[in-house]
Amino acid sequence: MPDDGTAPAPSIRFRSSLGTPLGQNAAKLLLLGSGEIGREVAIEAIRLGAEVIAVDRYANAPAMHVAHRSHVVAMTDGRALRAVIEREQPDVIVPEIEQIDTTELVRLQEDGYAVVPNAAATRITMNRERIRRLAAETGHVRTSRYLLADSVDDARKAAREIGYPCFVKALVSSSGHGMTQVRSARGIERAYREATRHGRVPNRRVMIEESIDFDTEVTLLTVRHYRPNGKPGTTVLAPVGHARPSTVYHESWQPMGFPARVVHGLGDVARKVTGLLGGFGVFGVECFVKGENVYFSEVSPRPHDTGLVTLGSQWNSEFALHARAVLGLPYQGPEPVVPAAAHVILGSAVGWSPTLGGLDRALAERGVRVFLFGKPEAYPDRRLGVTVARGRTIAEARRTAARAAHAIEAAIAFPPRRAAVRA
Amino acid sequence: MPDDGTAPAPSIRFRSSLGTPLGQNAAKLLLLGSGEIGREVAIEAIRLGAEVIAVDRYANAPAMHVAHRSHVVAMTDGRALRAVIEREQPDVIVPEIEQIDTTELVRLQEDGYAVVPNAAATRITMNRERIRRLAAETGHVRTSRYLLADSVDDARKAAREIGYPCFVKALVSSSGHGMTQVRSARGIERAYREATRHGRVPNRRVMIEESIDFDTEVTLLTVRHYRPNGKPGTTVLAPVGHARPSTVYHESWQPMGFPARVVHGLGDVARKVTGLLGGFGVFGVECFVKGENVYFSEVSPRPHDTGLVTLGSQWNSEFALHARAVLGLPYQGPEPVVPAAAHVILGSAVGWSPTLGGLDRALAERGVRVFLFGKPEAYPDRRLGVTVARGRTIAEARRTAARAAHAIEAAIAFPPRRAAVRA
Repeated sequence: MPDDGTAPAPSIRFRSSLGTPLGQNAAKLLLLGSGEIGREVAIEAIRLGAEVIAVDRYANAPAMHVAHRSHVVAMTDGRALRAVIEREQPDVIVPEIEQIDTTELVRLQEDGYAVVPNAAATRITMNRERIRRLAAETGHVRTSRYLLADSVDDARKAAREIGYPCFVKALVSSSGHGMTQVRSARGIERAYREATRHGRVPNRRVMIEESIDFDTEVTLLTVRHYRPNGKPGTTVLAPVGHARPSTVYHESWQPMGFPARVVHGLGDVARKVTGLLGGFGVFGVECFVKGENVYFSEVSPRPHDTGLVTLGSQWNSEFALHARAVLGLPYQGPEPVVPAAAHVILGSAVGWSPTLGGLDRALAERGVRVFLFGKPEAYPDRRLGVTVARGRTIAEARRTAARAAHAIEAAIAFPPRRAAVRA
Repeated sequence: MPDDGTAPAPSIRFRSSLGTPLGQNAAKLLLLGSGEIGREVAIEAIRLGAEVIAVDRYANAPAMHVAHRSHVVAMTDGRALRAVIEREQPDVIVPEIEQIDTTELVRLQEDGYAVVPNAAATRITMNRERIRRLAAETGHVRTSRYLLADSVDDARKAAREIGYPCFVKALVSSSGHGMTQVRSARGIERAYREATRHGRVPNRRVMIEESIDFDTEVTLLTVRHYRPNGKPGTTVLAPVGHARPSTVYHESWQPMGFPARVVHGLGDVARKVTGLLGGFGVFGVECFVKGENVYFSEVSPRPHDTGLVTLGSQWNSEFALHARAVLGLPYQGPEPVVPAAAHVILGSAVGWSPTLGGLDRALAERGVRVFLFGKPEAYPDRRLGVTVARGRTIAEARRTAARAAHAIEAAIAFPPRRAAVRA
């Protein structure tokens, strides 16, 4: 494999041609999960000339608005998953979320379907224990200290050993859900329940993780792709900085200035971790930086939320690069980055068909663009859109994106009769 | 009206909120014509949170690939046009082509539908005689000299008066079709037949136009939009240069460096002409520059082919600006421009479902992106895609875009049984 000689054989073939979408010769890309990340991947795949099929568990999910067609399917149900894939016969299956029957995905890959980045990587990365072990024990990359616990008592013991403050995390979750920072033994029980309840899959086991007093949290968007000479290669994009008041993605910016030694260390971690996982496409490798030390945290085998900023900072966004890589088309990067920032637009009210107001004030900001996701249902803290701003400096771009995002508010014209349905 | 006080009342209201696409409160944008220009407008409207309906005379037209839904309708048939619009009840009707029953469009506007930029402008601009008279006689902007002719003999007389070389042009045509440069009286008959036959609407009348020995041909992408304070305004983007071996769009680049006096003169013409037409959205104002003199040539009341370069040169492409303006959302421009160029990818073979090859060589170029339009049918010189390249200089970007475009070739796996169907 590309730069490190460890990964499995590529499942995506190098491509020099594309047929016509909706024709017999179409290149068909099937999205498993059709959120805002999937929407941008769909747009870029269609711009390249592919046919896109969007799948999700609910109707009118963001990527369905732009896909050629869509299916509403419980993707955690292996039989339903297989049925839709056998019906569509896609050239490439692109998971966008973690709530998929990955055992069935492995079988589908064995049957000859190309899964992005590969079925094993989607299985490994969705589980904190597995990816931690792979990175720390096989890859020997530095991570925060961690222990596993199967009960509240275990968790208390583990936390004592790790030291406070520490994190209690679900093994399987995404976007920072099921994750609590705990400052003393008193908080463990609640955090344990949160992790086992709000994790994506019911599980008694949780991870207790050292809370590193880091200086910065960054995402290394890392592309595994073909080079123009037909050989696979890895391109690590400029570090994306991000900050979050809680554990969920809130704002990000690119580029994030670091000394050369830190950039080198980050690139090293990104190449090593993605090399262990293999396959093609964009990965979001999350790291902490403390002084000159780099710690690996986790990795998404797909475009990352924090990479929404690349809609403004790069000529090829992470979505364009993902589409290109998973279609087997070559890339010769990296490219220049301009200062930009992204900031989430969150729902507050509960109900269907939200009306997004304050767009006049948001768009009054110079250099800002607004992306609304068209999600049919709103609820508190649901991500309904993102603002992306360019600026002369990162500070200016962050201020602009934040002001614009905060100007936008989702109102519900017809609230549900039973209030607080989701409270 | 904005900067000149002449245009009719705005038909698009200032907007501070948007509902949910496919919900009862959706903002519905209906495209009349669904080509590659419409596809990018659709993408940007959906990103903003609108619901998009694509209409064209054939199935699987480019914008239909990304729209929420589509209709195949003969848009030159007023009854069919009205039927689809009354069924969809769009908030805004966005013509993308000229082959529309504009008389019915006027009636639909009288019935309260918002037409972009307005029904009168779509009528006036599609006819070379009307727009010339408006610009030259009402607006007093400088144009090349021209005469009208209703027969071959008339045309010969007119050409003698104008002088050779001159252009013989259909009154109603688009993308440079039905237009011939004639070098002597011998070429008039053929050019006259070409203009009357290949024009979009059969017409005995043609325009004989002075062939100005210009230095440069440019497009002024001009946006009529709301400002954040709710008042209409006009923003003229940096001039787009373009060159064409024949009369049809072939390559363009932005920015096009001019002395301040020329930029001022161009901006003046753009503001004056678009002010006479009124309404909201992007216009492509085409001008010739000879020394310090600026000549108005023609205007499209919609995003212009040459503006495809803005996919790479501007943070908000002309399509993003069109979507924003026609939805009544504010804009505060202009923004910085980076050097970029666009180059068309043309079909050669005849047939359905072309396979686009050479993508490996095209994408080997650094800084290039490829947009393939997914058109179901190919024929010689049909535009099947475009390459857009960024470069340190315009010269570099043009070379890159050209090399990439020329690397791509459309092959037909199943050619029609009767060869030369369209020859």
